[in-house]
Amino acid sequence: MKKFINTPADYVLEMLAGIYYAHPRQLTYVNDDLHCLVTAQAVKPGKVGLVTGGGSGHLPLFLGYVGDGLLDGCAVGDVFQSPSAEQILNVTKAVDQGAGVLYLFGNYSGDILNFDMAAELADFEDIQTAKVIGADDVGSAPLERQSKRRGVAGIFFMYKIAGAAAARGLPLHEVGRLANLAGAATKTLGVALSPCIIPEVGSPAFSVAEDEMEIGMGIHGEPGILTQSRDSADRIIDRILPMLLDELTFQPGDRAAVLLNGLGATPQDELYILYRRVHQLLAERRIPVFHVYCGEYATAMEMTGFSLSVCKLDDELAGYLAQPAHTPFFTQLPLAP
Amino acid sequence: MKKFINTPADYVLEMLAGIYYAHPRQLTYVNDDLHCLVTAQAVKPGKVGLVTGGGSGHLPLFLGYVGDGLLDGCAVGDVFQSPSAEQILNVTKAVDQGAGVLYLFGNYSGDILNFDMAAELADFEDIQTAKVIGADDVGSAPLERQSKRRGVAGIFFMYKIAGAAAARGLPLHEVGRLANLAGAATKTLGVALSPCIIPEVGSPAFSVAEDEMEIGMGIHGEPGILTQSRDSADRIIDRILPMLLDELTFQPGDRAAVLLNGLGATPQDELYILYRRVHQLLAERRIPVFHVYCGEYATAMEMTGFSLSVCKLDDELAGYLAQPAHTPFFTQLPLAP
Repeated sequence: MKKFINTPADYVLEMLAGIYYAHPRQLTYVNDDLHCLVTAQAVKPGKVGLVTGGGSGHLPLFLGYVGDGLLDGCAVGDVFQSPSAEQILNVTKAVDQGAGVLYLFGNYSGDILNFDMAAELADFEDIQTAKVIGADDVGSAPLERQSKRRGVAGIFFMYKIAGAAAARGLPLHEVGRLANLAGAATKTLGVALSPCIIPEVGSPAFSVAEDEMEIGMGIHGEPGILTQSRDSADRIIDRILPMLLDELTFQPGDRAAVLLNGLGATPQDELYILYRRVHQLLAERRIPVFHVYCGEYATAMEMTGFSLSVCKLDDELAGYLAQPAHTPFFTQLPLAP
Repeated sequence: MKKFINTPADYVLEMLAGIYYAHPRQLTYVNDDLHCLVTAQAVKPGKVGLVTGGGSGHLPLFLGYVGDGLLDGCAVGDVFQSPSAEQILNVTKAVDQGAGVLYLFGNYSGDILNFDMAAELADFEDIQTAKVIGADDVGSAPLERQSKRRGVAGIFFMYKIAGAAAARGLPLHEVGRLANLAGAATKTLGVALSPCIIPEVGSPAFSVAEDEMEIGMGIHGEPGILTQSRDSADRIIDRILPMLLDELTFQPGDRAAVLLNGLGATPQDELYILYRRVHQLLAERRIPVFHVYCGEYATAMEMTGFSLSVCKLDDELAGYLAQPAHTPFFTQLPLAP
């Protein structure tokens, strides 16, 4: 296991301790539980609170999006495990400012169960909640069963757009509407060349043959839609980008935001080689590009691979995406229109 | 070779094409040569130009630091190869605004040769140049022969401080003085668990045994000071941090900036586990931490490993480090004093 760790059982707590030590002005925790992460800045009175949560092993997802113009808190689970309902509730109570709290999380059964239970507990405390579930991974189920799709890197666009809407002071139903629009406008597909190792397990749960690749593999190593022999960067993009665009009907005036996300061990060099081809294909289809995000946004520890997300933006969504944001893991200046 | 590429011979040009496609408002190139990268923003008249250069395979180093508050241009070499003197000259001419150009680059013989030749050619064109060479890697030679040391991730601090000084309008000799101070105040040591593969070679040039690690390995896989059996995150930091601090005499009032840099395949989770121990040891020595940078700043493609850099800051250097900066690869808001 080629990892820099101490004992596997301490992996998440020591990671969190390092994060709090490194960013004391930006992040803190509540209830004496390092897993209950919230912004160290006061949440503005009357602002809708935004809370996410999910398993560890995906940095900067999920907790890396807590900060100005983004989210207010994150319930942190163990590696690839949901946080508990109680942890979600504690984060909820810490960030609620009377305007309600929106839960944004990925479509995994453990997370759904615990967020739903937290919502019930919050209701007892007179905190209004709503939820929007990220399900952007087109590799995990066909369009006819899209409610079964997993949430992966594309949840970034939901965070970013909801975060800007909440920062602008919009009410809960409006922030929820925009998060839903962002979710519906975002499609993702991942390609993996190697697995990752859960520290407490110590060996890969699956393997990818030296000359093969997995199209549609999930960020926990869930099987994809296809195992095939390895292919060139351009041919991979030629194959997967149309699968995303086929589900997004671009109208005149719409623009694309592109997220080329490294899954862990893939260098930025390769992400840009892949983006080169994305750009060419979008130009051929006359789809204007609003902004390109290229780097690590949602990882699977040391997995070799990438995911490609496309978010279809009308002027309303583009306006929110363009707003500035700042966390210890992600900083964006205002984007030009 | 688990890489997303087309033909290895096109690796660098296709990467650069992707970068220019993705960031057209921020980066461009001169002389019809993608390797001659310059800021797409006009360099302010009378501002000292800052130019770097070096081999590819280290993103975001070197070209990722071209932008507001940082550098003005970068001559991009092939993988692990120096750019040519002519490419450096072309970048120099493009960014010179009459106040001279400062060359900032790492201590590698090919780069030194070509930057020196470019300086002579620039002199013929009446462009004044000066150079400051990064040599922060304490693993590459002992203190008595520190002029032989390689430049690695710590060059970030030299870029950042010189960039802020040039943006403030300081003259060439002052920007050079501050870059020299930043270089002298920065020490780095890397630890690797796996090699990387040069695309045109196709196989690793060296190996690290499953149960071993290399302390002091360079970002091209140069041998380190020690091969030893793998150790826990805390014990690695306990061993290497004192080697950096022993060369930096902290005085009352000095503060440390820390850079925990992933070499390619090491997840951010582990960087924060490592930082946790760094923080504890600095607290024990009563060294205040000014700012922590944790992520990928200078990589070796898909190498598994990290480097730890410490920069000792007096109030002058801290003031420059705190200034905002913005490139496609790195954005910093002003830091609190």
